Amino acid sequence: MGRIYTDELDEHAGHRVRLLGWLHRFRELGGVGFAVLRDARGIAQIVVRSRSDREDLERLPLESAIEVEAEVREHEQAPGGFELVEPRIETVAAALDPPPFDLFRPVIRAQLPTILDHAALSLRHPVRRAALTLSAASVAGFRACLRSQGFTEVFTPKTVGTSTESGANVFELDYFGRPAYLAQSPQLYKQLLVGVFERVFEVGPVFRAEPHDTTRHLSEYVSLDAEMGFVGDESDVITVLRSSIASMTAFAAEEGEAVELAGAQLPDVPDGFPVLHFADAQALVSDATGEDLSEELDLAPTHERWLCEWAVREHGSEFLIVTGFPLAKRPFYTHPDPSRPGFTRGFDLLFRGLEIVTGGQRLHRYEDYVAALTSRGETVEGLEWYLEAFRHGMPPHGGFAIGLERWVAQLIGAANVRDVRAFPRDVTRLKP
Amino acid sequence: MGRIYTDELDEHAGHRVRLLGWLHRFRELGGVGFAVLRDARGIAQIVVRSRSDREDLERLPLESAIEVEAEVREHEQAPGGFELVEPRIETVAAALDPPPFDLFRPVIRAQLPTILDHAALSLRHPVRRAALTLSAASVAGFRACLRSQGFTEVFTPKTVGTSTESGANVFELDYFGRPAYLAQSPQLYKQLLVGVFERVFEVGPVFRAEPHDTTRHLSEYVSLDAEMGFVGDESDVITVLRSSIASMTAFAAEEGEAVELAGAQLPDVPDGFPVLHFADAQALVSDATGEDLSEELDLAPTHERWLCEWAVREHGSEFLIVTGFPLAKRPFYTHPDPSRPGFTRGFDLLFRGLEIVTGGQRLHRYEDYVAALTSRGETVEGLEWYLEAFRHGMPPHGGFAIGLERWVAQLIGAANVRDVRAFPRDVTRLKP
Repeated sequence: MGRIYTDELDEHAGHRVRLLGWLHRFRELGGVGFAVLRDARGIAQIVVRSRSDREDLERLPLESAIEVEAEVREHEQAPGGFELVEPRIETVAAALDPPPFDLFRPVIRAQLPTILDHAALSLRHPVRRAALTLSAASVAGFRACLRSQGFTEVFTPKTVGTSTESGANVFELDYFGRPAYLAQSPQLYKQLLVGVFERVFEVGPVFRAEPHDTTRHLSEYVSLDAEMGFVGDESDVITVLRSSIASMTAFAAEEGEAVELAGAQLPDVPDGFPVLHFADAQALVSDATGEDLSEELDLAPTHERWLCEWAVREHGSEFLIVTGFPLAKRPFYTHPDPSRPGFTRGFDLLFRGLEIVTGGQRLHRYEDYVAALTSRGETVEGLEWYLEAFRHGMPPHGGFAIGLERWVAQLIGAANVRDVRAFPRDVTRLKP
Repeated sequence: MGRIYTDELDEHAGHRVRLLGWLHRFRELGGVGFAVLRDARGIAQIVVRSRSDREDLERLPLESAIEVEAEVREHEQAPGGFELVEPRIETVAAALDPPPFDLFRPVIRAQLPTILDHAALSLRHPVRRAALTLSAASVAGFRACLRSQGFTEVFTPKTVGTSTESGANVFELDYFGRPAYLAQSPQLYKQLLVGVFERVFEVGPVFRAEPHDTTRHLSEYVSLDAEMGFVGDESDVITVLRSSIASMTAFAAEEGEAVELAGAQLPDVPDGFPVLHFADAQALVSDATGEDLSEELDLAPTHERWLCEWAVREHGSEFLIVTGFPLAKRPFYTHPDPSRPGFTRGFDLLFRGLEIVTGGQRLHRYEDYVAALTSRGETVEGLEWYLEAFRHGMPPHGGFAIGLERWVAQLIGAANVRDVRAFPRDVTRLKP
């Protein structure tokens, strides 16, 4: 008998079917047993009348892997409107103990550290699993959008000889007896590949030795990177970013079950993101709060939240681009704004109060790189391999990087990015 | 005027168009200049009659980024059957020097180390670029195939507290003052996620501190991983692997230009891969070569080549599965073959003489893991986070890992995996 999944019961009403999955729950009510089988797509209720079967199930720890042959019967009160009756239940792999927390309750009743310590089990909870389903869908949407616009997928090295962004927050490793570093982003490599493919994207891990234990930082996360050549300025990049976010949202929407389970609120993606210059953003916050921000070179988390509320109020948009960030706070490859000294063509995308994307136009002339590094008191040493490309016709270009976990956390309203990552890494956590 | 690409000239014959790209080549023949523009999709010839334009182009180093407005004219001898006439050529970003090697010749006339030292430039060569295009297409084919069979994409950590396969060949890093390791494969994590999604896949970097400088080893490469639950034995895994390889081939075939440029020979993927037991494979090689292999626990590269020739001869297949590898040479999580003591349900896929995939059925019972580790003189220490899942109903499962660079190298007949990786890493190479 072919195997079906729990979301296919309606196609088999009145027939016997075979299912494989995990014993999610078992209860007895008035001499009748109700088992719940969970598979990759959902759950199904099994009505167990035989006394010996009920005794077996009572003894079988939850989360045992089971095989069920049964008849599908329409039943309004059952989850999904169908249940399984007259079952023959076999144990595929018996659990040795009950799980450390109940997986059948609406949420896991345990503290986050406990949940993360037992990630292999807590991720089986339908709600936590749903966050990973939305991650996968978002990534598929990102790729589909960029491929349709002529971007080529690339794979750049994660072990590098030069730290990408700065010497801080970089993990060092022993590379055959020499020091090497884990790439903090594919930035330098994706720029080089603009010279090859003009438009490239990459989905991959990035590594930040973040000493801060916050709800929005991980020391390893998935970065959705894109980079494109022959741009006019950063607005061309923002146009592609907007289409990527729209596609990620559309792909997430196709996972209706996961959207519902995770309580995801999918945003309306406007035809164009509202754009605010950094200086104007500061002025708005200053006017509203009375804070003196004239010495500030970046936005504080509270300011990001205030600006997002403003964007909803003024533009009906949950997204807000802040562009023109000060040169002093952006990396050396950032293109300055020729019309506003001290400011750049670097932007952030804020979504529901949180920065989820950084992007901008980059320098493309060799001499501009040398000048930018020199003015920062740095040298070209160690970057010759990168700078060489800019001697050989690099067009104006720019790109962006979306933090996958932040995006998904904002979609589902998770309080912590650790809630949406399978096996998170932070300053204290290296296992599981 | 909207911008078009070099592969769209035929749609614009007789009209003026705008192109963006790089100055790939410039020659003068009998008072007429012939410039070649290269963009992300191909090349186009520009006929330059104006003396001042010719003088400008003569002075402009190759690889400068340029913009061309010109009329499209059909011309049989031109590449693609069309050329650009009456051009207006503007320099978008002038190169400062000519490239270190000619990119317009059929192949780059330089040694591999030089080519790799200048990867950002050598990858602009259409033939080298084509290998990366086939990589991207293969990965897209892998994902499409697995998604269509109910696999969910996952993202597992690359910084880990326990080395995956063994203590050898692992990179150690400084993780906030503690030792950590770079994941040699997503093996342990993808198994845990079988308990969550039943079927998962991942495309990501893996890290091997390979001290050997060979043509088929990299210290960082892209692994295409899949893992699936509720299998009967390794043959269920091989079925999914076959469909993945077929889909990768089909997606590569859609990149006709890259296939041609790279000289790729796309294989016929048989409906079922021929399967040979390790012991039978050894016997065949022994019989043919007279070598005594009775003490050998693995296949040597020469044996892999001999077996592939045999598979072509006997089965008309460029693919060959060798299964049943000896327990002593496979990792602790490998499922033994209950019917043949000392052998396992672990397999390799050989393609054109090279192992490009390792896979198999895994242990799924907690007590089997403890016994397997104990019999190897190892303990459960450091693996508790992993083994816990096997106390909670892990079904029989298995999976495989395809080495992307080896696959592409075999497709195009590259002598070295470094030829098909954007920025390869090996024992001596950490830059670019």
